[in-house]
Amino acid sequence: MTKKYVYSFGGKTAEGKADMKNLLGGKGANLAEMCLLGLPVPAGLTITTECCTDYYANKELLPESLMNEVWAAMRKVEETMGMKYGDSENALLVSCRSGARKSMPGMMDTVLNIGLSSKTIPGLIKKTENPRFVYDSYRRLIMMYADVVMEKAEGREPADGKGIRKILDDKLDEYKKSKNYKSDTDLSTEDLQYLAEEFKNTVKNKLGTEFPDDAAAQLEGGIKAVFKSWNGKKAVSYRRIEGIPDDWGTAVNVQAMVFGNMGNDSATGVAFTRNPATGDNLFYGEWLINAQGEDVVAGIRTPSPLNNDTKNEQNKHLKSLQEEMPEIYMELCDIRATLENSFKDMLDIEFTIQNKKLYMLQCRVGKRTGVAAVTMAMDMLKEQMIDEKEAVCRVSGEQLTEFLLPILDPSDENNHKVVAKGLPAGPGGAVGEIVLSNELAMELASKGKKCILVREETNPEDVEGMRAASGILTARGGMTSHAALVARGWGKCCIVGCEALHINFETKTVNIDGVNYKEGDVFSLNGTKGLVYASEVKTMEANESPLYANFMTLVEKYRKMGVRTNADTPADAKQALDFGAEGIGLFRIEHMFYGENSEEPLRILRNMILSKDNAEARRKYLNELKPHILNSVKETMAIMNGKPVTFRLIDPPLHEFMPKKEEDINSAAIQLGITKEEVIKKAEEIEEVNPMMGLRGVRLGILYPEITEIQCEALFEAAAQLLKDGKEPKLEIMIPLTISVKELKHQKEICDRVHAKVEKEFGMAIKYLYGTMIEVPRATIVADEIAEVAQFFSFGTNDLTQMTFGFSRDDVNAIIGEYINSNIIKQDPFQTIDVDGVGKLVEMGVQKGRSKRTDLKIGVCGEHGGDPDSVKFFFRCGMNYVSCSPFRVPVARLASAQASIEAERKK
Amino acid sequence: MTKKYVYSFGGKTAEGKADMKNLLGGKGANLAEMCLLGLPVPAGLTITTECCTDYYANKELLPESLMNEVWAAMRKVEETMGMKYGDSENALLVSCRSGARKSMPGMMDTVLNIGLSSKTIPGLIKKTENPRFVYDSYRRLIMMYADVVMEKAEGREPADGKGIRKILDDKLDEYKKSKNYKSDTDLSTEDLQYLAEEFKNTVKNKLGTEFPDDAAAQLEGGIKAVFKSWNGKKAVSYRRIEGIPDDWGTAVNVQAMVFGNMGNDSATGVAFTRNPATGDNLFYGEWLINAQGEDVVAGIRTPSPLNNDTKNEQNKHLKSLQEEMPEIYMELCDIRATLENSFKDMLDIEFTIQNKKLYMLQCRVGKRTGVAAVTMAMDMLKEQMIDEKEAVCRVSGEQLTEFLLPILDPSDENNHKVVAKGLPAGPGGAVGEIVLSNELAMELASKGKKCILVREETNPEDVEGMRAASGILTARGGMTSHAALVARGWGKCCIVGCEALHINFETKTVNIDGVNYKEGDVFSLNGTKGLVYASEVKTMEANESPLYANFMTLVEKYRKMGVRTNADTPADAKQALDFGAEGIGLFRIEHMFYGENSEEPLRILRNMILSKDNAEARRKYLNELKPHILNSVKETMAIMNGKPVTFRLIDPPLHEFMPKKEEDINSAAIQLGITKEEVIKKAEEIEEVNPMMGLRGVRLGILYPEITEIQCEALFEAAAQLLKDGKEPKLEIMIPLTISVKELKHQKEICDRVHAKVEKEFGMAIKYLYGTMIEVPRATIVADEIAEVAQFFSFGTNDLTQMTFGFSRDDVNAIIGEYINSNIIKQDPFQTIDVDGVGKLVEMGVQKGRSKRTDLKIGVCGEHGGDPDSVKFFFRCGMNYVSCSPFRVPVARLASAQASIEAERKK
Repeated sequence: MTKKYVYSFGGKTAEGKADMKNLLGGKGANLAEMCLLGLPVPAGLTITTECCTDYYANKELLPESLMNEVWAAMRKVEETMGMKYGDSENALLVSCRSGARKSMPGMMDTVLNIGLSSKTIPGLIKKTENPRFVYDSYRRLIMMYADVVMEKAEGREPADGKGIRKILDDKLDEYKKSKNYKSDTDLSTEDLQYLAEEFKNTVKNKLGTEFPDDAAAQLEGGIKAVFKSWNGKKAVSYRRIEGIPDDWGTAVNVQAMVFGNMGNDSATGVAFTRNPATGDNLFYGEWLINAQGEDVVAGIRTPSPLNNDTKNEQNKHLKSLQEEMPEIYMELCDIRATLENSFKDMLDIEFTIQNKKLYMLQCRVGKRTGVAAVTMAMDMLKEQMIDEKEAVCRVSGEQLTEFLLPILDPSDENNHKVVAKGLPAGPGGAVGEIVLSNELAMELASKGKKCILVREETNPEDVEGMRAASGILTARGGMTSHAALVARGWGKCCIVGCEALHINFETKTVNIDGVNYKEGDVFSLNGTKGLVYASEVKTMEANESPLYANFMTLVEKYRKMGVRTNADTPADAKQALDFGAEGIGLFRIEHMFYGENSEEPLRILRNMILSKDNAEARRKYLNELKPHILNSVKETMAIMNGKPVTFRLIDPPLHEFMPKKEEDINSAAIQLGITKEEVIKKAEEIEEVNPMMGLRGVRLGILYPEITEIQCEALFEAAAQLLKDGKEPKLEIMIPLTISVKELKHQKEICDRVHAKVEKEFGMAIKYLYGTMIEVPRATIVADEIAEVAQFFSFGTNDLTQMTFGFSRDDVNAIIGEYINSNIIKQDPFQTIDVDGVGKLVEMGVQKGRSKRTDLKIGVCGEHGGDPDSVKFFFRCGMNYVSCSPFRVPVARLASAQASIEAERKK
Repeated sequence: MTKKYVYSFGGKTAEGKADMKNLLGGKGANLAEMCLLGLPVPAGLTITTECCTDYYANKELLPESLMNEVWAAMRKVEETMGMKYGDSENALLVSCRSGARKSMPGMMDTVLNIGLSSKTIPGLIKKTENPRFVYDSYRRLIMMYADVVMEKAEGREPADGKGIRKILDDKLDEYKKSKNYKSDTDLSTEDLQYLAEEFKNTVKNKLGTEFPDDAAAQLEGGIKAVFKSWNGKKAVSYRRIEGIPDDWGTAVNVQAMVFGNMGNDSATGVAFTRNPATGDNLFYGEWLINAQGEDVVAGIRTPSPLNNDTKNEQNKHLKSLQEEMPEIYMELCDIRATLENSFKDMLDIEFTIQNKKLYMLQCRVGKRTGVAAVTMAMDMLKEQMIDEKEAVCRVSGEQLTEFLLPILDPSDENNHKVVAKGLPAGPGGAVGEIVLSNELAMELASKGKKCILVREETNPEDVEGMRAASGILTARGGMTSHAALVARGWGKCCIVGCEALHINFETKTVNIDGVNYKEGDVFSLNGTKGLVYASEVKTMEANESPLYANFMTLVEKYRKMGVRTNADTPADAKQALDFGAEGIGLFRIEHMFYGENSEEPLRILRNMILSKDNAEARRKYLNELKPHILNSVKETMAIMNGKPVTFRLIDPPLHEFMPKKEEDINSAAIQLGITKEEVIKKAEEIEEVNPMMGLRGVRLGILYPEITEIQCEALFEAAAQLLKDGKEPKLEIMIPLTISVKELKHQKEICDRVHAKVEKEFGMAIKYLYGTMIEVPRATIVADEIAEVAQFFSFGTNDLTQMTFGFSRDDVNAIIGEYINSNIIKQDPFQTIDVDGVGKLVEMGVQKGRSKRTDLKIGVCGEHGGDPDSVKFFFRCGMNYVSCSPFRVPVARLASAQASIEAERKK
């Protein structure tokens, strides 16, 4: 049996439907669904994603059966549309578009107007009585086809960026200049006819092959080019960022062309069924009269508002569709309702009006900001469109994060002057240096500097620069332009269509109302309102709105797995409590040796390290250190009153604490009262070849038991002092880097001895739990033995990932990048847990641990604790809690609730 | 139910038996067995090893029920012996000795003559009519008891080494001097009586407590002291070296004293049922008239030969037991036959003759040299005492290794003068500098220098120095002295009882026949013949004797798992073939950059590394490198003709090849034509924080595919050239550090492409296998996927151990030492595979791999491939072969055969 590669749609019927996205891509599945819903969709056919995969598996050759299937489906399209492809009298034209499972806006190639040739043109002119339109369509076809099919798809793009598209664009500009034309609309039929011939000659000269004058050849070329563009540089780069697997492939949609540019009774537009920036339940869109769809998306002309609700400062002077074509607007409103009813979600639609007839070209679940996601989820719940569980699942971790992004401090905004306004495409606030190039944006980001990427408009080549920038500002484009779509997807602050902006790339300056700003000057953006400041406005954290509170209440209703935080300072602990943390899953005692107020403890620690061969001196310095440890741990335990705090004993290799830089060595020498040379020598003595796998963690406590002892003393005494003050400290002592239960026994002897001593001294009972990190592969294997002593496990998935992969985080960034590029791994295993490898060890550890101690408390305190996909995996493993950085706590809570719901749904 | 801690024996019956060694210790179990065999054994009781473990678990307190059990058993002893413990008229005296599962000669403490007190002495004098004997026994009791029970067991040994034993010894010496006595035998009854009182006063003064005059207290103290000595420093140190677990514990044997020192009709001796040095089937032993057992073992007097067969140059003037007491000798010969018949092995026995009555004090399976082990195994097979499988299992890997140890070159021995002769206690040859102290021996060994440890006699404090020395030479002691026993256990070259030797520790010289040799001068020892040379004799490898050939033929009959070798040079390959290797399991291509003739390839490689950002330049240097790789691999494949050779592609991080030392940097700069600073800068650029987990292995081949390509070209071309010459190359290409099947696919594309190209160029088919190392934890977890592409697995257990433990070999030696000392791990996991941790991953990898590819060839090429215990584990995992260094090949073959036999026995 041969595979079915082609699915037809059109005339209120279709072979596909909405839930066939994996096979037909998002666009193809939804086109089919719209047909089934009876909506006016130009007929067409979808070539499956499977065909794309087979194409790549088969040395980039189309399957043999494909074109026969395509032509059979084309017969149906011709029938439905009442036209004939390649016909000399009544020619059907088609578009050829990509459509992956997940929307990748602008990342792959499209060819329009396919089917125009010396054979079909005369008939079309006769039929449309519009020769100018026909020749304009023809020169557009030549430009797109030469670029996409004849150059890019053949891998012939020149390295200097001066491809055929640029050459033809320049030719067009020159011609207009020579005729003194201002706009494309000034071009006459004859001009366009002349240019079409010129273009064909240029194509032949530059590329060495003729532009195909055969409609059948054009279609096959278009299909191949779309497949080819799946592996184009920008598509691959976008997939890396979005985590889309390479083997998904793209579908190809071949669809009858309809034209929004056939005169003033024609138009094109895009709309969202609700406001994608705020989530408001208002129909929201833009349209352009006498234009093709690409004109809206590309942001070349500033579009008109769809309706009154869509009017704003920038476009209020333009007429809305509601005003201009009220009947068609009403039809569109009905379609809006039909679609939301069917899809139970906010949709992003594209439509075209051809000679007063409305056609739907696309619909898909719309991208939205974090605020919008939460707002819509809660609204749709109220509207009974979705239930509570679905509402919880409607908001992604990233959207929730974005919801909590910093904004410009409103009270400080009053102190600054708004120098320009634009469309509020991506909410939140951003402050940074102006940069005009992606390269500079990436360079500054790599140095930890914040910047604002300023561009005329953005295109897919810019994604890396956009990623690197804190905010994006463009002079052109609307709310559905490339910049707006991408920024919204990422939750990045973005203002588009800021027409006051004039960029001079040669002098590297930005001119606003006659004032020049140069690269390096600071801009501040209010992405929620579209305001630009040419000065540094203060930023602040988003306030907890009632919306947030309501949503999180809903989340809490379904959350089962606990969420703690990783925090070593009172400030972090407080913030995490505000975010809903239920305890501290990781307090690193060594934190006191870093950052503020660390000078004195660090001096003592260094003295201790330098006397490492002398137990007595070691002991002396450790005694000096004790009050520092005690104060540090006591303060945080007091803040977390009644909630558990897991203290991890000192973990890093000691040489990490020795000074490395010249100046630090000098000051250490003075502090310690020895020579520089002695400091350097001692530091070298304890350096290691692979410190990650050297003298650290519990190994320190085995070799130098007094280090463990002093920490236990400080911890128990802090707890005792708090108890005395009527507080409720919940102390958990955690041993790092364990590989054997015997290490735990060894350290527990010390711990128990100190515990008994302190209890006696204070005359009170001090409760505590004794547990361990599970972060070395061996620990997961002998977790049953370890659970005989450990009362809790905390998986350290950072180190576990390092050792399971043999990936040193300090060294393998470039390798991981190349591995993702080469499709060897799908995502960075330090960001999202490697379920197939590291995850198997985690599962083993959990199962073995519980096999010996059924009530073993198990959590995770690696960075994966704040990654939604990882959190869901940990829930499936049966963990009791995850612990993450304070700012990730809400995300972890949400992911935890979603995990419960997903598990229930699977039942 | 209370535990049974005490087992009685005596009077031809016993509660224990030979197979209860774990509970009763070796000595206790065999004493019981000898009673059951009807042999004359003084009655006694054994306290179990379990009691020792409980003693340590219970804060070093004897279990409450113990002493009641002991006294009940003592009643039986009294009955059997017809005497009464503590009785004033007919007092029973007892010894109190340790006895672990495995013999630990001299490592734990013993107290003799327990039960002598002011109450029992008069009756004993009356009964024996030998007051001198009674007082001599008494002063010995006081000396031992004060030392072992009152000082050592209480942890009161002074740091300066001047313990109570030394003080009493000095007192004895002074007294003898003051009386002008030459020997202990000159001491009269009155002298001894006086000394006993003096000793008791000294003990009280020095230790602050009285020597106990109560027999019951003496016994309890003795028992505790033996338990205590299990954790004495020398016992612990011995266990580390021998790999004896700390939790085995020791049993205590309390046994009725019999006396070999009651006159000239009394004697004591030790014997082996066959010659432990050569394996000859001749009764072999030594005896001393009128002496206690300790006198033989301590090597203080040179003992007489047991019989004619035992006579040699050193003792032929002394009368044998056969001559002196023929009837008792005949009785002993009968016992020898009874024991060998029962134990089916060579036994080491101790006996005492008290007033013409023979008593057996101990028997155990005797330690033997490698030669003796092989000889006995083959002899006992011929005698039909054991079967073939048992014969194979009778020789340990270490014994086989020792069998193949270097010897002095006999033809060169003729050129040197024998300066002294001694007893051939440990076979083989040794050449090295004379050292007189353990410290110096260890120091020289740590520098890789060979030395001969020269001592009057050795004692348990010397084990570390003995370990460090290449050979041991003592002036005193017999074949069963401490030095002889220990050296034989280790297979170390050793000569004892070399009476011509006079050592002056003050001048650090050795005088032989008036010639002085100083520390640093070279001695050569022929340990097989007992010859000492004061010059450097050439050494040579042991020739393959027919005995070896016959034994290995037997081994081959039962061996199922293959044995290959790790070799990267033609010389190693040849040697391994001689040792029976069936192929090469690991040929490291990077070997060509180390050692001889590496200058030119290294220069090219460095150039390649320095042009790492320029693919073209990289390619150029790689092309230059190709002929070097080709020659290197071709030569070895030619030698291994018809046998498989696994080539591992370049594995180490590239910065390993960059120069580190000043002089190397200078010469590299000259070679490369750049400045020193540039070399240093480039080297620093590619340095890594944790190189073990950085850019190495297959990662190099993914980032720089041309590195893989050039290696494949060289390998296939080498194979093609050999095929052309009519040779039979069996090529296996192995990818290192794999974590995912996708890496293997990536590299296989390159490999297959090159393969097709070379096949076309040479116009011939070139067979090869494509496989991978399994050495990163993740690889074991996804081994099923990996096996879809890999045709073979080779476990790299070195790296797998590193990452599973998080142990960097370069950094954790001190940690492993401390972990073994603290009983956290039992043995170095890099020497013997960690079955519970790493082993589980190995098992998982094997199972998963075979689940996808049933005929998957699986081997191991870590250093564990030559460790007998590890080899047996790999057999149980179902591996096809192990690969080890050439010299370990015979050991691996033996272990492989033993593993098959053990598996069969378990069925």
